[in-house]
Amino acid sequence: MNKVEMHHLIMAAKARKGFSWDDLSAAVGKAPVWLASVCYGMNSAPQEVAAHLCEVLELDAEVATAMTAYPVKGWDQAIPQDPLIYRLYEVVGVYGPTLKDVIQEKFGDGIMSAIDFSMHVEKIEDPKGDRVLLTLNGKFLPYRSW
Amino acid sequence: MNKVEMHHLIMAAKARKGFSWDDLSAAVGKAPVWLASVCYGMNSAPQEVAAHLCEVLELDAEVATAMTAYPVKGWDQAIPQDPLIYRLYEVVGVYGPTLKDVIQEKFGDGIMSAIDFSMHVEKIEDPKGDRVLLTLNGKFLPYRSW
Amino acid sequence: MNKVEMHHLIMAAKARKGFSWDDLSAAVGKAPVWLASVCYGMNSAPQEVAAHLCEVLELDAEVATAMTAYPVKGWDQAIPQDPLIYRLYEVVGVYGPTLKDVIQEKFGDGIMSAIDFSMHVEKIEDPKGDRVLLTLNGKFLPYRSW
Amino acid sequence: MNKVEMHHLIMAAKARKGFSWDDLSAAVGKAPVWLASVCYGMNSAPQEVAAHLCEVLELDAEVATAMTAYPVKGWDQAIPQDPLIYRLYEVVGVYGPTLKDVIQEKFGDGIMSAIDFSMHVEKIEDPKGDRVLLTLNGKFLPYRSW
Amino acid sequence: MNKVEMHHLIMAAKARKGFSWDDLSAAVGKAPVWLASVCYGMNSAPQEVAAHLCEVLELDAEVATAMTAYPVKGWDQAIPQDPLIYRLYEVVGVYGPTLKDVIQEKFGDGIMSAIDFSMHVEKIEDPKGDRVLLTLNGKFLPYRSW
Amino acid sequence: MNKVEMHHLIMAAKARKGFSWDDLSAAVGKAPVWLASVCYGMNSAPQEVAAHLCEVLELDAEVATAMTAYPVKGWDQAIPQDPLIYRLYEVVGVYGPTLKDVIQEKFGDGIMSAIDFSMHVEKIEDPKGDRVLLTLNGKFLPYRSW
Amino acid sequence: MNKVEMHHLIMAAKARKGFSWDDLSAAVGKAPVWLASVCYGMNSAPQEVAAHLCEVLELDAEVATAMTAYPVKGWDQAIPQDPLIYRLYEVVGVYGPTLKDVIQEKFGDGIMSAIDFSMHVEKIEDPKGDRVLLTLNGKFLPYRSW
Amino acid sequence: MNKVEMHHLIMAAKARKGFSWDDLSAAVGKAPVWLASVCYGMNSAPQEVAAHLCEVLELDAEVATAMTAYPVKGWDQAIPQDPLIYRLYEVVGVYGPTLKDVIQEKFGDGIMSAIDFSMHVEKIEDPKGDRVLLTLNGKFLPYRSW
Amino acid sequence: MNKVEMHHLIMAAKARKGFSWDDLSAAVGKAPVWLASVCYGMNSAPQEVAAHLCEVLELDAEVATAMTAYPVKGWDQAIPQDPLIYRLYEVVGVYGPTLKDVIQEKFGDGIMSAIDFSMHVEKIEDPKGDRVLLTLNGKFLPYRSW
Amino acid sequence: MNKVEMHHLIMAAKARKGFSWDDLSAAVGKAPVWLASVCYGMNSAPQEVAAHLCEVLELDAEVATAMTAYPVKGWDQAIPQDPLIYRLYEVVGVYGPTLKDVIQEKFGDGIMSAIDFSMHVEKIEDPKGDRVLLTLNGKFLPYRSW
Repeated sequence: MNKVEMHHLIMAAKARKGFSWDDLSAAVGKAPVWLASVCYGMNSAPQEVAAHLCEVLELDAEVATAMTAYPVKGWDQAIPQDPLIYRLYEVVGVYGPTLKDVIQEKFGDGIMSAIDFSMHVEKIEDPKGDRVLLTLNGKFLPYRSW
Repeated sequence: MNKVEMHHLIMAAKARKGFSWDDLSAAVGKAPVWLASVCYGMNSAPQEVAAHLCEVLELDAEVATAMTAYPVKGWDQAIPQDPLIYRLYEVVGVYGPTLKDVIQEKFGDGIMSAIDFSMHVEKIEDPKGDRVLLTLNGKFLPYRSW
Repeated sequence: MNKVEMHHLIMAAKARKGFSWDDLSAAVGKAPVWLASVCYGMNSAPQEVAAHLCEVLELDAEVATAMTAYPVKGWDQAIPQDPLIYRLYEVVGVYGPTLKDVIQEKFGDGIMSAIDFSMHVEKIEDPKGDRVLLTLNGKFLPYRSW
Repeated sequence: MNKVEMHHLIMAAKARKGFSWDDLSAAVGKAPVWLASVCYGMNSAPQEVAAHLCEVLELDAEVATAMTAYPVKGWDQAIPQDPLIYRLYEVVGVYGPTLKDVIQEKFGDGIMSAIDFSMHVEKIEDPKGDRVLLTLNGKFLPYRSW
Repeated sequence: MNKVEMHHLIMAAKARKGFSWDDLSAAVGKAPVWLASVCYGMNSAPQEVAAHLCEVLELDAEVATAMTAYPVKGWDQAIPQDPLIYRLYEVVGVYGPTLKDVIQEKFGDGIMSAIDFSMHVEKIEDPKGDRVLLTLNGKFLPYRSW
Repeated sequence: MNKVEMHHLIMAAKARKGFSWDDLSAAVGKAPVWLASVCYGMNSAPQEVAAHLCEVLELDAEVATAMTAYPVKGWDQAIPQDPLIYRLYEVVGVYGPTLKDVIQEKFGDGIMSAIDFSMHVEKIEDPKGDRVLLTLNGKFLPYRSW
Repeated sequence: MNKVEMHHLIMAAKARKGFSWDDLSAAVGKAPVWLASVCYGMNSAPQEVAAHLCEVLELDAEVATAMTAYPVKGWDQAIPQDPLIYRLYEVVGVYGPTLKDVIQEKFGDGIMSAIDFSMHVEKIEDPKGDRVLLTLNGKFLPYRSW
Repeated sequence: MNKVEMHHLIMAAKARKGFSWDDLSAAVGKAPVWLASVCYGMNSAPQEVAAHLCEVLELDAEVATAMTAYPVKGWDQAIPQDPLIYRLYEVVGVYGPTLKDVIQEKFGDGIMSAIDFSMHVEKIEDPKGDRVLLTLNGKFLPYRSW
Repeated sequence: MNKVEMHHLIMAAKARKGFSWDDLSAAVGKAPVWLASVCYGMNSAPQEVAAHLCEVLELDAEVATAMTAYPVKGWDQAIPQDPLIYRLYEVVGVYGPTLKDVIQEKFGDGIMSAIDFSMHVEKIEDPKGDRVLLTLNGKFLPYRSW
Repeated sequence: MNKVEMHHLIMAAKARKGFSWDDLSAAVGKAPVWLASVCYGMNSAPQEVAAHLCEVLELDAEVATAMTAYPVKGWDQAIPQDPLIYRLYEVVGVYGPTLKDVIQEKFGDGIMSAIDFSMHVEKIEDPKGDRVLLTLNGKFLPYRSW
């Protein structure tokens, strides 16, 4: 079973059972964004997490096996088109050099890892319109000489 | 004076005076990321903020005028190459559909605004390697029918 | 049922029944452009609108369910080729900077939302050749400092 | 004098005199969007309009001559990056096939001209946030057999 | 039936019957290039022409219906590769600015329509090698101010 | 002197003297499109034509020398943006496979040369709107086996 | 039968019979490169050559018919990736302007035809490593004025 | 002195002295294509060849030094536009897979080197039109296992 | 059997038997990277190696035949997206000109062959985090004059 | 002083003094590839290394300051064209998925860092042709769940 098929089976089971990502997160003890990324085929899960999730969703062991496979990460559109995703791309374009300057002034020459990394989404209720709070937390990796 | 010239004058003055973005932020009462984005020519500043910053940096009024001009936002590389910026692009590519799902499950059909928006960088000290904490806060805009 | 299949079922039923977008608009009480965009899979419909349309077109509840799903928006061609759509792209290319200047002079630094947004098509009869009147109405979103 | 130089001279004079596009429109009797597009080098002006505008802005006859030259229309970015212009591009992408269907159902097989064409921007004040009203008016051109 | 299937059925029937485009043109009273473009799915035919052609080719009414559908025009290759088509693209590249100058000097600021348009192919016999004569005839559309 | 400088000197002299391409064509005995293409730096002229044109325009011999140089042909935009040129590109896109079929049915497997080639522009006056008549005449080159 | 299916049938028969391109070349009296290009669907064969090859390979007449069809030439990759083909692309990139100069100095302003053209591959044995000798022979086509 | 300046100085001296590539080839004892490629900045020359050529062209030692520098090879257009060069690109596109098959059938799995490589241009006079003979000679490099 | 099918059969057998690339390498006496590249369809294997591997994996002779076929090498993404592969691409981008200078200073004008080439992966255990050691070994090919 | 100017000054001084990268490496105690990458503007040097190198090359302190600035890394060509660099790109394309599989089988799901990274070039003398040995050494970064 490949990651695409796995994704469809998980999404169907999730809908059938009426679980939200928060529900599944609570059930297996991992953050919603990471868990969703596994279910979208973009991360691999440890064996026990995969097994636990399949139990919760009443899915075959084959699905759990597909969840543990190391994914080939990729995306279809170099410039994303869906407005929700494009806005994030726009933020990287508009603020990229700014962030580079602010981060490197604080940390020195290096980067923020996208591998040793976590991300969270929160909802901030606001009478003038609710707000999305997105938190990215990545290890700083300094360039080094040799 | 265009935004490019303005940028060079500000960066030179900032270096000459030895100010960090945090110093300037404290001086004019605006967040470092926003302030840096103005100085990179990617946002316009209200008249009084521009004037205040030019005073702090001992720059001409012409620089303040350039800071208040409405910018044409843009970026040179559809796919950024500098590793620090690329990693953010990679995050959008790898986690884009995941974030769309998690956000829309929480908020309904809509997007996170990149206009009614703020962003912060923090340093989390960690003996295993310091971490970069990036916070994005955008208004949720629901799609609406008509 | 995905949005593509939904689209084909709706278009077939609409042709079979001989309804125009104006007819469907009158039947369910929503504007023709928005309604058509839902049927093309580019917007999600509220439950009651979807149900109503399926009733009018004598389509299964499954189609209504597909209509309420949140779409992933996208388009195949970065530069559209069909002449009707290309002309609109050309207008954006030729008049983009002009519109930016005229709008921002009237409203300040900010953008016209494509989310809090509506659009209408009208036919203006004219003996020298009928004219298409296209109206776009979007909320102005000011950039803000933080 | 080429169109780029002409553009800079007009913009400088307009700023110096404190005129808005509406002021200039009232002065020379042409719509603000068209007039701005001429000043951005994207349309040619009739001799008398060019002369009139240069009189109002106290600019040399050479500028008027540049205004009457037939422009080579073009734009730098196949996919625009400035958020205000990108949102219009996004509208074309998201609603292009919808508009094709709605327009051709009303008018038959053909296109809306981008040459025999006019466009207006209006501000609609609204306590929940002002709105931009964009009106495009183009002649319908039917495909014909031969 | 979509345009692709229609195209294959027409081409097969045309080959089976041994008709040339000139034969079909004579039979239905329309020019060969236009008729072929309809059969390639790039133009829509009036009902009576479609019916007539299907009679001549002994094809089902369903094919005629497909011929009357309004096409979505498009092409696979932004830069065509087949040598016959590439040479035409090369002509547009090499002579484009020249033609713009020559046409606009004769007609004023405007374009040659590709919608109100016709095209013909003729063979000019020549002992040094036959020549292809391609004639394009398009309405001149002047830009207008507003 | 390179072709760009040559082009600017010729265009300036042509404007100063008030000659049209037809005037220059009549003066040196070559077709307007070809002559203009030489002046745009896209073809080389025989020595005597170059000399003759420079005499008519009162230009230095250096310009004539530049006119005889073999050009490197090229164009800036793979997909042209100016509407007049784009419409020709669109014709190649929409009608390319149609033309291939019609031409090859008449001539056999081969192409229409863009080298052994000529082109003319004519104005057809018409009360419903003047028309542009574009004629392309290219040698047919058959593919051959070996 | 299309060219793709034709190609697979020929390649299978050729392998089954153990023929090389040289064997087939000798059998039907045409050069190996041209013959292979026909079998790859990139050239059309005269009726008698197609028939002869199908006889040699014991293939159906339908394959011969497909061999005589006029191909639509094309290639998948604007920049080829297979190293053998890329090296040829690299030669065109590195030596293109050099060849233009050397050829045009010898022949005048014009091109080497890729239509009235032949190509051969030879093996030159060499103790330091065998060498590939590739010969391209194309008619020189002079640009002409009109 | 960089390769661009070197190129212009050599081309100017060559024109001034009225030498052809064949003349220079005879003078320094290297093939015309290789020599021209050095002068176009695409290959480096051994010290003595560079010195000899500069003597023949009466150029400074600095030019000879620039000729011996190792070049960074590159080309501006991934898909060349000048017709003479495009035709070679087209040959690679149309015949690439054919050549791969014919060469590898003769030599085994491997490639023809573009480094251990030579190329020649010859003119074949022909009453029906002269022909260009292009010869590429490259070492065969077999893939090897490890 | 094509290379894609071959790849899937080998990967399935390898997983079923629980062999690592090191195990297979030891079994057939070839390096793991080369062996894996053959199984990914990117290199051809000598007959005896293919047969040996199929024996070890208990696969049909047809798989061995597919392993010996000369592959068409290619990759889907000009700019790879999977982070592991992108990092290697980034190394080529960031260090490409540096490596060119260092290599050519040591070896003269020429390149490192990617054909007469081998590659190895080693794991270096390190308490601060294990390290990947990648070794590339390619024959130096000097440019030569002719 | 920006990195481009710094690069030119260093390269000129290095040539003037006749130092190789190995000489400079020995002088300042850092590896040649890293040192060269600093001089190409692709890495920043610690203050003392920069000062030391400028002393060795007799360059101004301003050059040392430029060497310590944090660079914006980038490259001009998404697909490199110089043959030496292209071959490395080709290796990434051809062997990318192979390396991913071999590395991840050895290390688990993760990547090889291009930041915590070093690289060396060695010359292996060989009577059949010298060989380039390229060694890449990067920290393995495991993906982690959260």
